[in-house]
Amino acid sequence: MESNPLEEHSLGLLPWFIAATQILGLAAVVMTGVWMGYYEGGFAWDGTSLEFNVHPLCMVIGMVFLYGDSILVYRVFRNESKTTVKILHAAIHLVALVATIVGLVAVFGFHSAQNIPDMYSLHSWCGLISIILFCIQWVVGLIFFLFPGVSYSLRACYRPLHVYFGLGLFILAIGTSLLGITEKLLFSIGSTYSKFAAEGVLANVLGLVLIGFGLTVGYVVTRSEWKWITSPEEEALSMHFKTLTERDSPDSPQGS
Amino acid sequence: MESNPLEEHSLGLLPWFIAATQILGLAAVVMTGVWMGYYEGGFAWDGTSLEFNVHPLCMVIGMVFLYGDSILVYRVFRNESKTTVKILHAAIHLVALVATIVGLVAVFGFHSAQNIPDMYSLHSWCGLISIILFCIQWVVGLIFFLFPGVSYSLRACYRPLHVYFGLGLFILAIGTSLLGITEKLLFSIGSTYSKFAAEGVLANVLGLVLIGFGLTVGYVVTRSEWKWITSPEEEALSMHFKTLTERDSPDSPQGS
Repeated sequence: MESNPLEEHSLGLLPWFIAATQILGLAAVVMTGVWMGYYEGGFAWDGTSLEFNVHPLCMVIGMVFLYGDSILVYRVFRNESKTTVKILHAAIHLVALVATIVGLVAVFGFHSAQNIPDMYSLHSWCGLISIILFCIQWVVGLIFFLFPGVSYSLRACYRPLHVYFGLGLFILAIGTSLLGITEKLLFSIGSTYSKFAAEGVLANVLGLVLIGFGLTVGYVVTRSEWKWITSPEEEALSMHFKTLTERDSPDSPQGS
Repeated sequence: MESNPLEEHSLGLLPWFIAATQILGLAAVVMTGVWMGYYEGGFAWDGTSLEFNVHPLCMVIGMVFLYGDSILVYRVFRNESKTTVKILHAAIHLVALVATIVGLVAVFGFHSAQNIPDMYSLHSWCGLISIILFCIQWVVGLIFFLFPGVSYSLRACYRPLHVYFGLGLFILAIGTSLLGITEKLLFSIGSTYSKFAAEGVLANVLGLVLIGFGLTVGYVVTRSEWKWITSPEEEALSMHFKTLTERDSPDSPQGS
């Protein structure tokens, strides 16, 4: 599809911000890998703490990096058809969900093998709430935006909620990661944390990088000049589809 | 000033959402008070853990409840002049800042008296960053929006950044509170946390209430239908002021 001239103006710094999100997101994944792989002894699937180590890595990849990138597709692929970008959005979220479930199985498996109680900490409460709401949001999003039978006006009603709660869950996932970092450090390195042990400093910096990733992704998707503008052809198609289904007027001609 | 008819439509659920924010915010303050006052022994200014107890209460009052309410004034006082609401916004933030500084002095005083190292944890890093950025945001906001000499176009350029980083800092303050809850529970109740001790459950629920406060405040201030609409008189005044100062066109006729 041809580039939409309406979108050409004011995109200015967008590619730099997208680059910043990717550098921060990949840095977070690499730092989590180094923390678990080097300082915490590596990875295995044997019920020991090496199985636990799979948990932070999968969560940072799934609930943070891929989740964030899935939100960003609406700002990166500006010249594709909206349906293509929606499918990409759902597909990346699905991969994120698979990584998240592997990370969840790892921590429950470790707890079970070591007789450690489950679901008592604020981290676990926030984490489980995030994952359950993520699954619900994914299924409801699929039904509303990719199944053909849903009317234009219903989609227009649900879209702002999907966008708000999607971003809210992303922030909650980052907050939950920070809680996980704090818990892990207090359990693993205990008193050396207060002596600025290298592992503690690395994990703290990882926390700041996660916050930086959240801030830049949030900025890119909420800045009004960078919002997705539906092309005139798609707008006409949507209006045609709307006329076919019912007569309510949509809230706004802009997409999410 | 008379009610603006432009704003009358679609406010529908706004009062209920405002009420929900206040119930959640006050619940968070009361729960922090009960946690520190009942389970952790009360408050004092004597270098013991009772001085530490002042810290969470002041932070939840200052960096969370009052900070959130200061953001909300633009949605609550819709029929006042914008200058009045700006002054109220700055004044509530100032009270929040005072509470925050008292909370900060309490924890540093406690650490100093007990020879506990400072500034090693992710909680302390996030907290200090939040407070420094909060001070900078307050001073820059005062200069840009309340000092008379700043041009309309400069204000219009800075406004979206002030709004985005203001909300970002609010979310960071809530995240920092959750980190503080986790640290405090692991230091204070240790192994009984995993046995679902009442204090741990109360503090976890406090964490969820803080998240609920953040989510509802965020929803109220970002929902497009509820945004502040400048009245025709103020719009005319602004345009007149703009014409007097320079000729750039503002980004948008809407306020923050």
